[in-house]
Amino acid sequence: MHTHLVAALDIGGTKIAGALVDSHGTILVRAQRPTPAREDGDTVMRAVEEVLGELDASPLWGRTRAVGIGSAGPVDAGAGTVSPVNVPGWRDFPLVERVRATTGGLPVELIGDGVAITAAEHWQGAARGHANALCMVVSTGVGGGLVLNGQLHPGPTGNAGHIGHISVDLDGDLCPCGARGCVERIASGPNIARRALENGWRPGPDGDTSAAAVAAAARAGDPVAVASFERAAQALAAGIAATATLVEIDIAVVGGGVGKAGEVLFAPLRKALGDYATLSFVQRLTVAPAQMGTDAGLVGAAAAALAGAAGTATAGV
Amino acid sequence: MHTHLVAALDIGGTKIAGALVDSHGTILVRAQRPTPAREDGDTVMRAVEEVLGELDASPLWGRTRAVGIGSAGPVDAGAGTVSPVNVPGWRDFPLVERVRATTGGLPVELIGDGVAITAAEHWQGAARGHANALCMVVSTGVGGGLVLNGQLHPGPTGNAGHIGHISVDLDGDLCPCGARGCVERIASGPNIARRALENGWRPGPDGDTSAAAVAAAARAGDPVAVASFERAAQALAAGIAATATLVEIDIAVVGGGVGKAGEVLFAPLRKALGDYATLSFVQRLTVAPAQMGTDAGLVGAAAAALAGAAGTATAGV
Repeated sequence: MHTHLVAALDIGGTKIAGALVDSHGTILVRAQRPTPAREDGDTVMRAVEEVLGELDASPLWGRTRAVGIGSAGPVDAGAGTVSPVNVPGWRDFPLVERVRATTGGLPVELIGDGVAITAAEHWQGAARGHANALCMVVSTGVGGGLVLNGQLHPGPTGNAGHIGHISVDLDGDLCPCGARGCVERIASGPNIARRALENGWRPGPDGDTSAAAVAAAARAGDPVAVASFERAAQALAAGIAATATLVEIDIAVVGGGVGKAGEVLFAPLRKALGDYATLSFVQRLTVAPAQMGTDAGLVGAAAAALAGAAGTATAGV
Repeated sequence: MHTHLVAALDIGGTKIAGALVDSHGTILVRAQRPTPAREDGDTVMRAVEEVLGELDASPLWGRTRAVGIGSAGPVDAGAGTVSPVNVPGWRDFPLVERVRATTGGLPVELIGDGVAITAAEHWQGAARGHANALCMVVSTGVGGGLVLNGQLHPGPTGNAGHIGHISVDLDGDLCPCGARGCVERIASGPNIARRALENGWRPGPDGDTSAAAVAAAARAGDPVAVASFERAAQALAAGIAATATLVEIDIAVVGGGVGKAGEVLFAPLRKALGDYATLSFVQRLTVAPAQMGTDAGLVGAAAAALAGAAGTATAGV
């Protein structure tokens, strides 16, 4: 017997990925286009339609029962619209309606990309079996999502878990979001690199000034590189501790490019968590690296579609 | 026909209040003792037993079906124990078991005091009708609780919503909890008064150096007093904005002695929220003064008992 499938879309500032996914989270068919992020909204939508068209061409499409979308935010799940910061052509863009029309009226579930990776880590990754978890992506930006009481917590608009834009330094540097001292303003890859350069770190002969290069320098013992990661870890720890103190999570899963820095990040992160997660009920909090790879967004979007198709917020998530 | 009642206990560092409460939240019988906070654990428990004994003496006791406890934290709802910071004789004290024994085996629901006042504001006060809310007490300390998806969110141990101990200034002053720059370390009444005094504010002839006296001076235009409230408001705004950004609340209810300062607090609080609540999905966030008075803890504990007695987390809450 053939079981039902869902279509998943992972929409970011650089690529639009799509897949047909079964109820075990296995990806059966893939399609992808670069995001024409600087073009007008209809041009961006055309790229989404091409991805869906390629999936539609598969003989498996006939078994598809719902579509799940994880999109760069902010999103508005209630209105079915998206306004990704890095896609200026989409502002309150009616993505859900457009995808529904493209797919012949399939039900569409929309969540933010941080919520999507959280759904994936909770379903199949490092947060599996945890009833209360924070999952984060630390990369060019810092995003995240929450699992509370065993269920994904997207919030009314699908944006909950935006840990990158909570302030942990209320007098700190201005963040592009308009606030000061946000976790992302201190802990994102570009800010790790910026701080290292400002404090005298210099790249090697290849001229690579990425956070990955700073991580390599830190592993080799460069004190300025080490200090920049320690400062990022301190901001992440303050943000994770705040989350645990507010909603009682027992694990924080950290992924993304900066998360891949390994112990250069995780050692000071665990130490700093001891400094900020002080109340008795948050002291058992652990941190763990993400386990889902680059497919996390697709798998999480599929989880949302499966949960929606089952008419409950829990199935598959 | 006589409907069922619940017994409610509100246990703080200065008093232990008890009541018999009906399903509408009406308090029918009261009892109270000072908390012998510096005594050993059994002496403190004896005061609780005296409160329950007085309720037990009422002819209405026979209709009592459950007990709700809102206690100063931290609590451990799973273990049924409490460890109130200001009651050193109680550390992992088995309050639930002892109250169950005292009341002949009635079911007992335990929540933290911040969660209790939140249950009360959501049931009958300023958060009524809001599916996602933060309720706070700003007083000697800063506490709080959360309503998410229309339900009280106590968290696994009953401590969720501890906004007073999230850091909004990661390099800031050391807090008694061990972290730095906690909301409470900046915004509590004693810290508002301390900061005013440190910056040159002097009390009137009555020598009153309370936050209420600083509030009166601020209303009269004293710039140092105004600045101290503005700084408290900034810390509260950063904490409220962080909460909204993490879990998507649409209202923050502020009560407690400092909350009673009125526009001296609320005007700069609303302004500062504009600075920190920047993402599109948190911009509709409002703040409102608490509506429940000093009975909030009792009414909230009763709500928890009614919800527990109904075998669901939602009934009455």
